[in-house]
Amino acid sequence: MTTRIDGRAANVLRPVKLQTNVLDFAEGSCLVEFGRTRVLVAASVEERQPPFLRGTQSGWVTAEYSMLPRATHTRSQREVERGRPGGRTQEIQRLIGRALRGVVNVELLGPRTVTLDCDVLQADGGTRTASITGAYVALQLALKKLVAAGTVPPGAVQSAVAAVSVGIVNGVPLLDLCYEEDSTAEVDFNVVMTGADEFVEVQGTAEHKPFSRAGMDSLLELARQGIAELFEKQAAALG
Amino acid sequence: MTTRIDGRAANVLRPVKLQTNVLDFAEGSCLVEFGRTRVLVAASVEERQPPFLRGTQSGWVTAEYSMLPRATHTRSQREVERGRPGGRTQEIQRLIGRALRGVVNVELLGPRTVTLDCDVLQADGGTRTASITGAYVALQLALKKLVAAGTVPPGAVQSAVAAVSVGIVNGVPLLDLCYEEDSTAEVDFNVVMTGADEFVEVQGTAEHKPFSRAGMDSLLELARQGIAELFEKQAAALG
Amino acid sequence: MTTRIDGRAANVLRPVKLQTNVLDFAEGSCLVEFGRTRVLVAASVEERQPPFLRGTQSGWVTAEYSMLPRATHTRSQREVERGRPGGRTQEIQRLIGRALRGVVNVELLGPRTVTLDCDVLQADGGTRTASITGAYVALQLALKKLVAAGTVPPGAVQSAVAAVSVGIVNGVPLLDLCYEEDSTAEVDFNVVMTGADEFVEVQGTAEHKPFSRAGMDSLLELARQGIAELFEKQAAALG
Amino acid sequence: MTTRIDGRAANVLRPVKLQTNVLDFAEGSCLVEFGRTRVLVAASVEERQPPFLRGTQSGWVTAEYSMLPRATHTRSQREVERGRPGGRTQEIQRLIGRALRGVVNVELLGPRTVTLDCDVLQADGGTRTASITGAYVALQLALKKLVAAGTVPPGAVQSAVAAVSVGIVNGVPLLDLCYEEDSTAEVDFNVVMTGADEFVEVQGTAEHKPFSRAGMDSLLELARQGIAELFEKQAAALG
Amino acid sequence: MTTRIDGRAANVLRPVKLQTNVLDFAEGSCLVEFGRTRVLVAASVEERQPPFLRGTQSGWVTAEYSMLPRATHTRSQREVERGRPGGRTQEIQRLIGRALRGVVNVELLGPRTVTLDCDVLQADGGTRTASITGAYVALQLALKKLVAAGTVPPGAVQSAVAAVSVGIVNGVPLLDLCYEEDSTAEVDFNVVMTGADEFVEVQGTAEHKPFSRAGMDSLLELARQGIAELFEKQAAALG
Amino acid sequence: MTTRIDGRAANVLRPVKLQTNVLDFAEGSCLVEFGRTRVLVAASVEERQPPFLRGTQSGWVTAEYSMLPRATHTRSQREVERGRPGGRTQEIQRLIGRALRGVVNVELLGPRTVTLDCDVLQADGGTRTASITGAYVALQLALKKLVAAGTVPPGAVQSAVAAVSVGIVNGVPLLDLCYEEDSTAEVDFNVVMTGADEFVEVQGTAEHKPFSRAGMDSLLELARQGIAELFEKQAAALG
Repeated sequence: MTTRIDGRAANVLRPVKLQTNVLDFAEGSCLVEFGRTRVLVAASVEERQPPFLRGTQSGWVTAEYSMLPRATHTRSQREVERGRPGGRTQEIQRLIGRALRGVVNVELLGPRTVTLDCDVLQADGGTRTASITGAYVALQLALKKLVAAGTVPPGAVQSAVAAVSVGIVNGVPLLDLCYEEDSTAEVDFNVVMTGADEFVEVQGTAEHKPFSRAGMDSLLELARQGIAELFEKQAAALG
Repeated sequence: MTTRIDGRAANVLRPVKLQTNVLDFAEGSCLVEFGRTRVLVAASVEERQPPFLRGTQSGWVTAEYSMLPRATHTRSQREVERGRPGGRTQEIQRLIGRALRGVVNVELLGPRTVTLDCDVLQADGGTRTASITGAYVALQLALKKLVAAGTVPPGAVQSAVAAVSVGIVNGVPLLDLCYEEDSTAEVDFNVVMTGADEFVEVQGTAEHKPFSRAGMDSLLELARQGIAELFEKQAAALG
Repeated sequence: MTTRIDGRAANVLRPVKLQTNVLDFAEGSCLVEFGRTRVLVAASVEERQPPFLRGTQSGWVTAEYSMLPRATHTRSQREVERGRPGGRTQEIQRLIGRALRGVVNVELLGPRTVTLDCDVLQADGGTRTASITGAYVALQLALKKLVAAGTVPPGAVQSAVAAVSVGIVNGVPLLDLCYEEDSTAEVDFNVVMTGADEFVEVQGTAEHKPFSRAGMDSLLELARQGIAELFEKQAAALG
Repeated sequence: MTTRIDGRAANVLRPVKLQTNVLDFAEGSCLVEFGRTRVLVAASVEERQPPFLRGTQSGWVTAEYSMLPRATHTRSQREVERGRPGGRTQEIQRLIGRALRGVVNVELLGPRTVTLDCDVLQADGGTRTASITGAYVALQLALKKLVAAGTVPPGAVQSAVAAVSVGIVNGVPLLDLCYEEDSTAEVDFNVVMTGADEFVEVQGTAEHKPFSRAGMDSLLELARQGIAELFEKQAAALG
Repeated sequence: MTTRIDGRAANVLRPVKLQTNVLDFAEGSCLVEFGRTRVLVAASVEERQPPFLRGTQSGWVTAEYSMLPRATHTRSQREVERGRPGGRTQEIQRLIGRALRGVVNVELLGPRTVTLDCDVLQADGGTRTASITGAYVALQLALKKLVAAGTVPPGAVQSAVAAVSVGIVNGVPLLDLCYEEDSTAEVDFNVVMTGADEFVEVQGTAEHKPFSRAGMDSLLELARQGIAELFEKQAAALG
Repeated sequence: MTTRIDGRAANVLRPVKLQTNVLDFAEGSCLVEFGRTRVLVAASVEERQPPFLRGTQSGWVTAEYSMLPRATHTRSQREVERGRPGGRTQEIQRLIGRALRGVVNVELLGPRTVTLDCDVLQADGGTRTASITGAYVALQLALKKLVAAGTVPPGAVQSAVAAVSVGIVNGVPLLDLCYEEDSTAEVDFNVVMTGADEFVEVQGTAEHKPFSRAGMDSLLELARQGIAELFEKQAAALG
């Protein structure tokens, strides 16, 4: 049986923490940790619609993602200094937004926008999956306030949503890769699922060698188990 | 049995054309058409390495993607006018690059870079999958010249690679979506495979409702059949 | 008698092709070739005015110009990567816009904008003159639709417009320079004329040595003859 | 006697916390809190010099500053989306860098750069003074490692440095303004001092009405007392 | 007694010139010289408000600052080429704006904006203090026209405002530093005062070593004397 | 006989002034006035080559052009605020550079660059022609110093160069258009000539109606006379 860098078995998540209401001003917030990966998520509710919804009563959920320059082992230049968010940043924030919208009925939100700012304080692999998992918690906290105030009817969030990475390292399928595993993985999947055991997004990439249908099946099964555990953590955090 | 907007059956590709050597100066080139989607791919070989390979003898394969402003039904602003490539553009060009690198042994290329410029002359859905399919052809044409000149040993390209989109529209799995189908699809997959029947990339997104494991399985099977046909077209084009 | 690189006599144009309606979505389009120079022109009609015309019933004609990165002998960086169109690009697209407006009564267009996107698929000298010559054709095709639909009255285009380059190479005045001639020319003129034998724009530059009044006269005469031939090609293309 | 919004007396600091080594990868780090203002400071040591020091054996200390979009009462747009750091951001990060360099002998650092990234997690006034106060702690922690490793000789940091804001609100001089006080202050000073009771920087601005020499004197005295307390907190944190 | 590089005593200003109405189109203008430092200030009145004043009857005063590339001893790159104003530029133009607003009752201006463009033709130290001193003159000239036209009531400018730099060079407090003095100063203050002997802004920085309270006091006294002279020059220029 | 807005006859220049050595730090400088148009030109000599000349002993002459925001009748936004020089700016600075290089043997300059910064203090038409005319003077002053120092051999500047605008207003050919004439001209030419009565650049544009060959001839003759006068002014200024 494989022992991993940090002593975990192949199908074990890193320690997960979901600390709620960590910010005083944001409508909802969550500090999510997957091992040493740490993301601060703030949910902001604004009374404005994106341009393409003008004239409707529908709302929107969107996300932004950024890493602090010293989130990583060595310091990275701030993207603002290069004048624009990089391709990786944009790809991730688009993914987070789609994942959340996958479980929200935006028509029930009314003409407002919820922005989920996912700022990575420390990065040790899995920042996008931690972001999605924590963003769900922050979003729920913000919506509870809107529902309590009578601004939004209950039911806008139709299901939980969480995400985890899985990958094949040295031929072995592993759950929830840390940075060192991720950087040597042959195949890398990010899987986003709902509480109803359905998929919102599956992104699998062969980093070093193509993968078979059977390999994909075993990874998806591993992800499903990990995500089931994440749903329990989310439920506990939301009390 | 479903009849589609353009009269196709659910498991039928649009007419595919792969016209080779359409440019006089590029080392390799291919004008690829998937129905009304038309992408001009140029393969450029340059005697330079990306910074992270300096000091090695390895080469690199990368891609850039852009749409002409009037590729689409209505005119779009050029990205240069906004000062930076948008998130969608960056996401697509990163995908094309990874797909090609998935079948190339970059160490055999020597200290040089092959850039695959995928410029969409007309867009009717599937521009990223057409780009990958055409880029493989352009890359092979460029490498043939390098091999013939003795600059690169044979064998750098280890397999064919092609891609197709599949999706669920009104509950029915469909192969190779045109724009109108794509914009109403509930689920949308882009699948990249090698000639050895393996996957390089699988990207599946629930646009409107989450999808089940069974739904994913039927889409992947549809994609596999479509890609098998694309390999035949590529082989024919490369003579 | 001079024989040129490609065997032409001094006063002979390269083979000119004007292929019409090559795009499915644009209101007008033309693929223009001057020898190996190949420009795809799309005419887009939009129901909007530039800010300086607001409050009037006048329309506008404008142009944008861009080269694909591998249009040239060696690959060039995309301008979007540098964050802005270069000086040469802006100079050319301003010239194309002025040339077209020189023969259009914009007041007859009504409150709309016609944008001529000139995208250079391959560049072998004369891309700006080929763009103007092809843009006239694309514009006419777009306006025919507007006139047929009763949206615009006939007569907005008051004359044909076409352009050609001329230059002095090794002391000899030559018509329609290819890239190799252009890069060694002592003097380089771009001449834009109307079907009424008048000038819209004359831009002459001494690249290596100043030129006399007599030299200018012989170049302008050469241009006039070449443009007369271009008018015939345009008329044939427009049927 | 004045009672302030949060019940403090005029000459009392908000609760100050300085949590050390909060990051796993950074050479030094400190989470500093002045009341609800919370700044995460990371000190990164890199073996590179700024261009103007090339050829010398001197090092450099610099700072970058940024606010998370939801640090504030309402969400602000990320500066990366506007393509550049705003004037306020640049002004503050230049101030922080100067303040730290004011107590460091950069020649003893050798050819390396210490960057102090000050990322504001929550902003309730005084973010620049909290940043300076916390950055000193993070810098000391990073330098201790360099000294322990024998890379840098002891003594590069010549004194402590800390900062506080003072201002006149409704005619009364107050220490350590929170956001609500700051936004109504008539005069606003940021004062940076060393452990040797000297000034590194004094920045005073009349926001609504000019101030007298006597007013300035009382504010400077108030700042001096507050900074003396901050030195005790820093010493305790550094143990 | 100290003799300075240019022969001045420690408490003597460089020759000051304030030439009025040097531009034909601007509502007010002033060419200000502090020795070899030369700044052209134009005051422009525009009938628009900044966004945050919409809905009020208040006006605004703002400033922009720029140096010509060859204002300095060696040529500097234009900031437009780097795509954004640098940190120093933004810091200075914010300072100039605050200084002017410190003596203007913007509510009396009505819904309009006065922009003070300070363009440095030649820079020999003290460009920001010369800018403020000249901007006051240009602003007064522009407002006189508005008052004469009955557009603005008298009294919007409540006091004169002027500025000077002071610093400690080799232990000696000096008034109005030239570039060479400024670049070797241990301490550098910019002081902005009103005609009522009050302060609008005090910015003091220890460039090389921290300064004591006593040092600050002597610098502020030196500044006050210099500014008193500048008020006389301004009054003479305004006739 | 036509009388113009400012009382001039059709073939008369506005008052021309060329004030030399107006800057203390630049190697050469000239304040040039064509009527109310006023351009400050600084010639800077730098010991660096543009990238495309590396490895040669050749030098380069280049130009940059900018207008102060209040050079014009109404204030314009600074281009740095938009993040890039506009198309018009780039077109003009490219023209000025070509014009100067047209009379300079850059191989004699050695491995250095002369930059001519043309900053328009006030604009009343003809800013590009005034810039060229003044830049020649500034360039000569800078080169005289290089020749005197033995850095550059005599003879690098092979001829004088000057420029003027001409145009057809209400059917009448006019010399040296002021802004009001320029904005109503039917045809607008900028003509650059050498002291040997030859052309470096001719740029003619039909602003409102195409022009005939005869019209062009009369304009070129008018320009030639005006430029002859400018050569006299330049010679006088250079003593």
